[in-house]
Amino acid sequence: MPTIAQIAEALGAEAEGDLRIEVDGAAEPAAAGSRDLAMALSPRWGEALGQGRARAALVWPGADWRALGLEAAVFAPRGRLAMAGLTQLLDEPPFPPGIHPSAFVDPTARLGEGVGIGPLTIIAAGAEIGDGTCIGPQVTVAEGVRIGSQGVVHAGVRLNRRVTIGARAILQPNAVIGGDGFSFVTREPAYVEIARETLGKGPIPVPEDPSWHRIHSLGGVVIGDDVEVGACSTIDAGTIRPTRVGDGTKIDNLVMVAHNVVIGQHCLLCGQAAVAGSSVIGDRVVMGGRAGVGDNLTVGDDVVLTGNTGVLSNVPSGRVMMGYPATRIDQQIESYKALRRLPRILRDLAAGVSKQPKDG
Amino acid sequence: MPTIAQIAEALGAEAEGDLRIEVDGAAEPAAAGSRDLAMALSPRWGEALGQGRARAALVWPGADWRALGLEAAVFAPRGRLAMAGLTQLLDEPPFPPGIHPSAFVDPTARLGEGVGIGPLTIIAAGAEIGDGTCIGPQVTVAEGVRIGSQGVVHAGVRLNRRVTIGARAILQPNAVIGGDGFSFVTREPAYVEIARETLGKGPIPVPEDPSWHRIHSLGGVVIGDDVEVGACSTIDAGTIRPTRVGDGTKIDNLVMVAHNVVIGQHCLLCGQAAVAGSSVIGDRVVMGGRAGVGDNLTVGDDVVLTGNTGVLSNVPSGRVMMGYPATRIDQQIESYKALRRLPRILRDLAAGVSKQPKDG
Amino acid sequence: MPTIAQIAEALGAEAEGDLRIEVDGAAEPAAAGSRDLAMALSPRWGEALGQGRARAALVWPGADWRALGLEAAVFAPRGRLAMAGLTQLLDEPPFPPGIHPSAFVDPTARLGEGVGIGPLTIIAAGAEIGDGTCIGPQVTVAEGVRIGSQGVVHAGVRLNRRVTIGARAILQPNAVIGGDGFSFVTREPAYVEIARETLGKGPIPVPEDPSWHRIHSLGGVVIGDDVEVGACSTIDAGTIRPTRVGDGTKIDNLVMVAHNVVIGQHCLLCGQAAVAGSSVIGDRVVMGGRAGVGDNLTVGDDVVLTGNTGVLSNVPSGRVMMGYPATRIDQQIESYKALRRLPRILRDLAAGVSKQPKDG
Repeated sequence: MPTIAQIAEALGAEAEGDLRIEVDGAAEPAAAGSRDLAMALSPRWGEALGQGRARAALVWPGADWRALGLEAAVFAPRGRLAMAGLTQLLDEPPFPPGIHPSAFVDPTARLGEGVGIGPLTIIAAGAEIGDGTCIGPQVTVAEGVRIGSQGVVHAGVRLNRRVTIGARAILQPNAVIGGDGFSFVTREPAYVEIARETLGKGPIPVPEDPSWHRIHSLGGVVIGDDVEVGACSTIDAGTIRPTRVGDGTKIDNLVMVAHNVVIGQHCLLCGQAAVAGSSVIGDRVVMGGRAGVGDNLTVGDDVVLTGNTGVLSNVPSGRVMMGYPATRIDQQIESYKALRRLPRILRDLAAGVSKQPKDG
Repeated sequence: MPTIAQIAEALGAEAEGDLRIEVDGAAEPAAAGSRDLAMALSPRWGEALGQGRARAALVWPGADWRALGLEAAVFAPRGRLAMAGLTQLLDEPPFPPGIHPSAFVDPTARLGEGVGIGPLTIIAAGAEIGDGTCIGPQVTVAEGVRIGSQGVVHAGVRLNRRVTIGARAILQPNAVIGGDGFSFVTREPAYVEIARETLGKGPIPVPEDPSWHRIHSLGGVVIGDDVEVGACSTIDAGTIRPTRVGDGTKIDNLVMVAHNVVIGQHCLLCGQAAVAGSSVIGDRVVMGGRAGVGDNLTVGDDVVLTGNTGVLSNVPSGRVMMGYPATRIDQQIESYKALRRLPRILRDLAAGVSKQPKDG
Repeated sequence: MPTIAQIAEALGAEAEGDLRIEVDGAAEPAAAGSRDLAMALSPRWGEALGQGRARAALVWPGADWRALGLEAAVFAPRGRLAMAGLTQLLDEPPFPPGIHPSAFVDPTARLGEGVGIGPLTIIAAGAEIGDGTCIGPQVTVAEGVRIGSQGVVHAGVRLNRRVTIGARAILQPNAVIGGDGFSFVTREPAYVEIARETLGKGPIPVPEDPSWHRIHSLGGVVIGDDVEVGACSTIDAGTIRPTRVGDGTKIDNLVMVAHNVVIGQHCLLCGQAAVAGSSVIGDRVVMGGRAGVGDNLTVGDDVVLTGNTGVLSNVPSGRVMMGYPATRIDQQIESYKALRRLPRILRDLAAGVSKQPKDG
C-alpha cells in the first residue's frame, strides 16, 4: 500500500504532514475510512471531511489541511489530473497473467513476451499480439488481426479480419471492431436517392427489383496507439481502404463509427456518439454524448459538438456546435431562447399588432 | 396446461363459463387456435374473436362473452396487469437446470442452492451467486462479483470486477456491467473546457500535450433488487464510489448508464436512453426511448422524460419534459406549434406588415 | 485471381483494353498498386489515377481510359452497383468450413449440408441450421431456433428461443435476437400513464405499490430471407405474436427493434435507428442514422426518415420526413430556416416595430 510520500511522488505533487501514512484506496470525503485517501479537491468537498474518517486527503491548492482535521495532505493544482495519476496507482490489472489452458491459440499466431490470454478466448491463424498485452476471457481475435503491445482487451470483444490496433489499446467488453460496413445499392435508383432532390414531392417509383445489393467490406480497420473503445461500441470495416482511428482518441460506450470513416488524433467520442459512412473527423475533436455526424462530411480540428448535436454539413476547425441541424452554439442558444418566447409573441401579435405602432 | 379456473386464480380475477377448459398458450383473437386463450382486452379486440378459434378469452370488464362466441372468459379490469400474470404463468425457464460440465467455476466461488450455470460460462475467483439464480451460456462473471438469488443472467453478459447485483435480477444478452467509466483529463485545460465559457468565440489553444490521461474506475457498480437490464446495455463502474441502480428499476436495450450515476427505485429507462456521468435520477422516473440526461445533473422523483428528450439542466420532481433542450411538455408543444406556423407568419410579416395596422 | 475479362463478365459490364490483366484487389486510385483494380467511378476520381500505379480501373461510362493512363477499363454505368458485384467477387468466406471440435452441438439439433460451426459455439436442442450456413465462434443458438440456408452468423451473436431466421441471413457480431421485450405495468395507473393526459399539470399520485410487473415475451421473432442485422443490434421477442422483419430488409449496427414490431420488406434501418413497441413499418422504408419511430405507430411504404428524425404520429406512404417531431422535409427545412432568422427578427420587432409601417 502506498504512503502519502509515494503518492505525492507519483503525482509530481507537493505534500505536507505525516508523509508515512499508508492508504488502501480513495474515497469521497464523507465516505472515507481511516485508510482511505479522501478526494477533497475543492472547498465544497473539504466541508464533508468531518463526516468521514480520512487521515489524509488530496486537496486543492492552498487548503488549510490542519483546520480540515487532516494529518497529511497532497496538493492537486489540477484535481482531475491528480485523480488520473492516483486511480492508476491504486488500480490492479484486470486479468491474471498467463495463457489459460482453455484458450484456443492457433499455432501460427504470434504472441509477444508476457501476453495474457483469458479462458475460452480464440486467437485465430496469423494473429499477432504485442508484448504485455492482456486479453480477457471469451474474446474473438480473427485471422491475421494485429494488436500492439501493453494493451487490454476485455471479455467478449470481437476483432474481425483485417483489423490492426496499435499499442496500449483498451477495448471494453463486447466492443466490435471490423464488422461489415452498411453499404447497399439497388439496381435502379432507389426512392431514397431520388427523394433527396425532389424533397419527396415527386412521384414514387415502383421498383421492378427493390433488392439491396451488398457492397462487401474489404478495407478493414486501422486503429492507432493509445486508443480506448467502449463497451458495445462498433467500428465497421472500410470498403476498399481502412476505417481509421487516430492515436490517443478515446471512444465511449455504444458509439458507432461507420465504414470508411477517418477519425483524427486525441478526439473524445462520448456515449452513443456516431459518425456515418466516409466522414472525416479532425484532431482533438470532442463529440458529446449522442452527437452525430452525417455521412460524407468533414469536421475540422478542435471542433466541439455538444451532446445531442446532429451535424448535416461540413464544420470548420475550432467551431463549437450545438443542436440539430448543428449550428454555432451562440446562434443556436439564441434560436432556442427565441423559440421559447415565440408562442407568447405570436399570441401578442395576433391580439394586438394593430395597436403596437401606437403603443411602441 | 392450466385450466381457466387456474388462470383466474393465479390472476386474482373473476371468470365465467366452462372453467375446466385447458389452454396451451395466449394469442391475439384473430390468430388464436382452439387451445389458446385469446387476449380480447377491449371491444376493438373482441370483434376479431370471430376470425379465430378461441374457446376462452381474457376480456374487458362487462364483456358479453357469450355473444362473442366464447365458452369461458376471464375478466381483466386492468388488461396489461392481467397479461403480466398470464404470460408469467405460461413462460418456461430459459435455461435447463444444473451446472454444465464445460463451465469454469473457480473453486473459491460460492454458489447457492439450485444455481444453474450454462455451458462455457466463467465464474471467477471469489464470486458469489445466490440461491436459484440461473446463468446462461458464455457469460463472464469476474472476480468477486456478487449476484443475489433467483436471478436470470442471459448469454454473453459481462459482469466486471466490483459489481454487486441484488435478488431477482434479469440481465438480457450481451449486457455489460462494470466496464470502465469514460473519464479523461488533459494536463492543461483542453479546448472543450475553455469553450464552455467562451462559447467558441475565443482563440483555440495549441496544446503542448493533447494526450488524454485516464481516470481509472475503482468504484464498481451496485444494483438493487428486482432490476432488469436490457440487451447490449452498459452500466459503467464509478470512479471512487459505485454507480448505483435502485430496487425495481427496469432498463431496456442499448441504454447507457455512465460512471458515478445514481438511479433511484422503480424507474423505467426505455431503449437507447442514456444518463451521463455523475447525474442523479430520482425514484419512479420514466425515461422514454432515447431520452438523455447530461452529466452532473439532478432529476427529481416522478419525472417523465418523453422519448428523445435531452435534459441540459436540473429537473424538479414531477415534471413532464419534452424535446431538446428539455422543456415542460405543455410549453414545448406550444413552441413546436409556433415553429410550424413561423415560416408563413414571417412571409406574411415581410409582405404586409405595413398594411397590418390598417387592416387589423 | 480474376482477370479483367472475368470481372466484366461477373458484373455484366463492358470492358476495353487488355482483358487478360489480373488483379488481386480493389483500391482507391491514388492508393492503387499495379495489381489493384482502381475505383475511378467519376471524373473526380479519374484525376487521382496518376498518383497510383493501377493498370486497370472500374470507370464511369465514357471515360477516356487511355488518356487516364490505363491499359484496361471496366465501365460501370451505376458505380456502386458495380462495387457490389466486384467486392463480392474479391471477398473470402469469413470462417473456415467444418464443425469445430470445441463446438457444442446438441444431438437433437439438425444441421444441413455443409454447415460450418465455429469454436466454442453452442447449438442447443432442437435447433435447425439450413444448408451451407456458416456460424462463427462463440455464438449462442438457443433451443429450437431455426436458421435458413446459406447464412452467415458472426461471433458472439445471441439467438434466443422462439427465433426463426430465413435464408441468406447475415448477422454481425454481438447482435441479439429474441431478447425479452420491455413491457411492464404497475398495479394502479402509473404517473406516466396519467401524465399523458394531464401534460404533467395534475397532481402526482403517491403509489401504494410502485412495482413494475413484467409482461413476459412468448412470441419470439420471425425474420425473412436476405436480412442483415448489424453489430450490437437488438431485436426483441414479441409478447404473444412474433416481432417480424420482412424479406430483404437490412439493419445496421446498434439498432433497436422492440417487441411486437413489424417491419416490411426491403427496408434500410441505418445505425442507431430504433422502432418502439408494436409499431408497423411498411415496405422499402429507409430510416436514416438514429431515426426513431415511437410506439404503436404506423409508417407507410416508401417512407424516408432522414437521420435523427423522431416520429411521433403515423406517417403516410411515400413521405420524406425530417426532424423532431417528424415533419415533411420541405416544411421542416422552412421551419429551421425561419428559426435561424428568428432572433434577429425578434430584435428588430422589439426595436422598431412602430417604425416599420412607415419604413415598410
